Amino acid sequence: MDIRVYLAGEIHSNWRSEIVEGCSSAQLPISFMSPISDHELSDGVGTDILGDETDGFWKDHKSAKINAIRTRTMIEKADILVAKFGEEYRQWNTALDVGYAAAKEKPIIVLHPSSLGHPLKEVDATAMAVAETAEQVVKILQHIVMKQDTIDS
Amino acid sequence: MDIRVYLAGEIHSNWRSEIVEGCSSAQLPISFMSPISDHELSDGVGTDILGDETDGFWKDHKSAKINAIRTRTMIEKADILVAKFGEEYRQWNTALDVGYAAAKEKPIIVLHPSSLGHPLKEVDATAMAVAETAEQVVKILQHIVMKQDTIDS
Amino acid sequence: MDIRVYLAGEIHSNWRSEIVEGCSSAQLPISFMSPISDHELSDGVGTDILGDETDGFWKDHKSAKINAIRTRTMIEKADILVAKFGEEYRQWNTALDVGYAAAKEKPIIVLHPSSLGHPLKEVDATAMAVAETAEQVVKILQHIVMKQDTIDS
Amino acid sequence: MDIRVYLAGEIHSNWRSEIVEGCSSAQLPISFMSPISDHELSDGVGTDILGDETDGFWKDHKSAKINAIRTRTMIEKADILVAKFGEEYRQWNTALDVGYAAAKEKPIIVLHPSSLGHPLKEVDATAMAVAETAEQVVKILQHIVMKQDTIDS
Amino acid sequence: MDIRVYLAGEIHSNWRSEIVEGCSSAQLPISFMSPISDHELSDGVGTDILGDETDGFWKDHKSAKINAIRTRTMIEKADILVAKFGEEYRQWNTALDVGYAAAKEKPIIVLHPSSLGHPLKEVDATAMAVAETAEQVVKILQHIVMKQDTIDS
Amino acid sequence: MDIRVYLAGEIHSNWRSEIVEGCSSAQLPISFMSPISDHELSDGVGTDILGDETDGFWKDHKSAKINAIRTRTMIEKADILVAKFGEEYRQWNTALDVGYAAAKEKPIIVLHPSSLGHPLKEVDATAMAVAETAEQVVKILQHIVMKQDTIDS
Amino acid sequence: MDIRVYLAGEIHSNWRSEIVEGCSSAQLPISFMSPISDHELSDGVGTDILGDETDGFWKDHKSAKINAIRTRTMIEKADILVAKFGEEYRQWNTALDVGYAAAKEKPIIVLHPSSLGHPLKEVDATAMAVAETAEQVVKILQHIVMKQDTIDS
Amino acid sequence: MDIRVYLAGEIHSNWRSEIVEGCSSAQLPISFMSPISDHELSDGVGTDILGDETDGFWKDHKSAKINAIRTRTMIEKADILVAKFGEEYRQWNTALDVGYAAAKEKPIIVLHPSSLGHPLKEVDATAMAVAETAEQVVKILQHIVMKQDTIDS
Repeated sequence: MDIRVYLAGEIHSNWRSEIVEGCSSAQLPISFMSPISDHELSDGVGTDILGDETDGFWKDHKSAKINAIRTRTMIEKADILVAKFGEEYRQWNTALDVGYAAAKEKPIIVLHPSSLGHPLKEVDATAMAVAETAEQVVKILQHIVMKQDTIDS
Repeated sequence: MDIRVYLAGEIHSNWRSEIVEGCSSAQLPISFMSPISDHELSDGVGTDILGDETDGFWKDHKSAKINAIRTRTMIEKADILVAKFGEEYRQWNTALDVGYAAAKEKPIIVLHPSSLGHPLKEVDATAMAVAETAEQVVKILQHIVMKQDTIDS
Repeated sequence: MDIRVYLAGEIHSNWRSEIVEGCSSAQLPISFMSPISDHELSDGVGTDILGDETDGFWKDHKSAKINAIRTRTMIEKADILVAKFGEEYRQWNTALDVGYAAAKEKPIIVLHPSSLGHPLKEVDATAMAVAETAEQVVKILQHIVMKQDTIDS
Repeated sequence: MDIRVYLAGEIHSNWRSEIVEGCSSAQLPISFMSPISDHELSDGVGTDILGDETDGFWKDHKSAKINAIRTRTMIEKADILVAKFGEEYRQWNTALDVGYAAAKEKPIIVLHPSSLGHPLKEVDATAMAVAETAEQVVKILQHIVMKQDTIDS
Repeated sequence: MDIRVYLAGEIHSNWRSEIVEGCSSAQLPISFMSPISDHELSDGVGTDILGDETDGFWKDHKSAKINAIRTRTMIEKADILVAKFGEEYRQWNTALDVGYAAAKEKPIIVLHPSSLGHPLKEVDATAMAVAETAEQVVKILQHIVMKQDTIDS
Repeated sequence: MDIRVYLAGEIHSNWRSEIVEGCSSAQLPISFMSPISDHELSDGVGTDILGDETDGFWKDHKSAKINAIRTRTMIEKADILVAKFGEEYRQWNTALDVGYAAAKEKPIIVLHPSSLGHPLKEVDATAMAVAETAEQVVKILQHIVMKQDTIDS
Repeated sequence: MDIRVYLAGEIHSNWRSEIVEGCSSAQLPISFMSPISDHELSDGVGTDILGDETDGFWKDHKSAKINAIRTRTMIEKADILVAKFGEEYRQWNTALDVGYAAAKEKPIIVLHPSSLGHPLKEVDATAMAVAETAEQVVKILQHIVMKQDTIDS
Repeated sequence: MDIRVYLAGEIHSNWRSEIVEGCSSAQLPISFMSPISDHELSDGVGTDILGDETDGFWKDHKSAKINAIRTRTMIEKADILVAKFGEEYRQWNTALDVGYAAAKEKPIIVLHPSSLGHPLKEVDATAMAVAETAEQVVKILQHIVMKQDTIDS
């Protein structure tokens, strides 16, 4: 079984590469999708392409909507969503992605330091697994796609 | 047209009462639903009812899941979701509710101070209106249910 | 069987009143919903409530989105959509409502002068009936809710 | 991520080729679908295949329905809908496609000259991006499928 | 539990009255819906309201579509579909209703003489019960809504 | 908020009455639905109404399908499913109901003695709460429908 | 655009081969699916595999259900359904397939001699095209998958 | 037509290999998916990856949820579910899978010794076929994917 995983959340650490490389080393049949991790490119995409705005709200709005095309399309195509939360930033967009994926019945794996357990309790409650390290996520994905000899295709 | 509105988000200010009273004064045919706003009651509901836990994670988990029954049922029954974000707390649960409601195709009205525009840009991008005051939300709701003479039932 | 009908389209003629009064005279168990037919109120609602915009695009955008909360909620609640097209104005919003309702599997009745048959052929192709007068629409609705003696509740 | 894009709307200008060639030059993994752009072939398909009609309404009806099989099937298979509106013609069918795609939760990119902003405000309000040139649409699509090094498959 | 039942099929016998009266005598909380059983009224509704046709196909088409608004709306509102087949007529519309209701996950009760078992085997295979008499249908409905003392509301 | 609860599972103990009476004493706005708890009536309903069978498999089949009309209709109408498992009997039908309700996105509360935790781990994993007593279920339901002063309708 | 077509209905004439060969000659990117056309094999499959039945009803039932796995799976995978009705046999199963596909929003092409127009009016009313010959169906399918130079993939 | 089959249920006998090998010998275009059949690996996966628990309930819970990601993803991707029940163990998880698949409208084939007919009557009532041997399941699958000469792709 080939599966597709969307990696939502934190863009200023290398957790995505750790998961992708871990799965690659283990030769798992998994393809990954992710948001644009270049912060400036992502924030400016709306006005860069569609023309400038004087009001910061509309500048953000145009970028957020173009990025949302990417996000929504990728979550729609994903079998599983992995969401990473960190100590920095409010990351409301990550929680938004989790809520969206939950309503679309996508299984969710949440990744965060244990210190964030209390403020993330509602997010964790929608998840099928709550991990603390990228390595744990790799092991969970490996379990999900593990082939049974003589049975699974 | 009678409508049902779910009021998600911030529990430590009186924005809910302002909206409910504003709609009541204007005699709008709107019924409201909301999460438990008693913070301790909400946080402790899991262990209070189902027995204590030694590990804080599971204590939070049990409460979050019982509260989720309420939240999910109410969002499912709602025609519209209003979500309030404030400067304090990370309110990941509120963004989670917005994502969930968006995927369920519920129209969303977001309420927050303009200072939060940038970090909430993805949340605002899923909304049909972004308000700064409870009074604005009342006016929007009034517009939505406004009766056309001799036409609307 | 009580049904709910959403009356989409043209706001500068009295076709809605004709249908509502026709159904009322015939004592049909039908309730009606409609967009705001006060053109200025509808066009200005966004900036009237949420604050002015310098750019006309965003002024229109804010109003269109608030009106969309009303429209979407009403189409969602409707059993049947009646859409009126006229010679004047481009009425892209009316065709938009028809497409939306069609995808939501709501039966559609289109009302327009026969002269518009060719440009409206795709719209008519999604409809269950194409009428030229409000009186015909009343008769169709009457047929749909007609009670069979000793059988229907 | 490979995506499929349906190009709805205007058939008497070369905007489709501009987008397709722009994406092809940039080697984007995007496949395109479109309505029949040969106006006579499209309008006559019903009677050409299924036999003539004396009444113009039914001639249009038969063609519109066969074309609708193509349109509906393509929108269903599409990840994203791009819709082009121009000054000429009423293009109710294009607005119909947008409404249909919106209800099917397909992200929508609208393309039209800024002069049409007011009459298209409801259409624009359903869109994730409103562009004025084919080149802008190419850039948006490029952003959506952009590969993140060492992460995206 | 109040339920709604749609009575599809045969219109030239009194099976509907038998079921409705049987349920009424037993004071069951069931409301019934049915197609127009006046054959001429039903067949002529399209041209009677919307104007005559020279081609019999389009005459039938206009009536069938108006009747379909009624049928689809009623099946959508129904909790259960009862479908009656008889020896006479081909009743393709009844099998169509069963297929439609099956795809909408409505439980189906089929009613027909045992002699029709073989040609109706695919229809019966979609049903939750295959009855031969209206009395049996009444008993099944009675079982479905039967109140458990001190428990059911 | 009025809610509807379906009480699935064990029929040879009085857990249903305990929940119904507990909620009634607390004046909660909850209505309950349940399967037929008269074992013989339930098992024989197929052949009692539709005629005897020589093969036990078809006798069971006819009854199970008629009971399924009741069960499916009630789960469809329910906001929440409560499922009770006990030490006796294999109760595969109760687990079936839980799986069905889970796929329909109904929040699930499971009730069973702690000794059954291991064999029920997959069932518990689909639940929002796992209770051991009917009293706990009453308290959870009370929390879900609890009215917030001056806010909830 | 590659499409999949399910060929429902009449099994005792060669209309399927005509359509498949016509599309093959025209090199259309269409794959076809169909029910088992060997009448005896189809009717006996239930008891042939799962053991004999004394009652003809259950013999039919077992076969109809196994055939339904094939039919439902194929309709689910199909983009378009073509349904052929003939003068002989009642073909309730074909109308059942049409109703099922209609509710699943699959575009339908009906194929029947014009003499059957009146009894098939409800079936035709759910269709996007009503053809009289296999050759017409081939031409419609050709129109649906026709490639636009330099645009469609 | 290529199909995907999920093999749910009993893990301590070789029924899966029998089906997979039987289909392989017959060169059927079927791919298979299955749960982890290594009992210890499956039961311990939660704590093995995510850290130990003192309370057995949470140990089971963590494992059951990770396994559920695999199960849910596979059922979602499957066209057909085959579920095997045996005399040993309560196998509530298997009935849960059947209920889940039923609500997702996946055709179900149940496999069990005839002695279990009565306790499994509700499960059997959701199935399209009830087999006693793996060989029968192979024959049913063969019938479902059987190619019609000159017609099926």
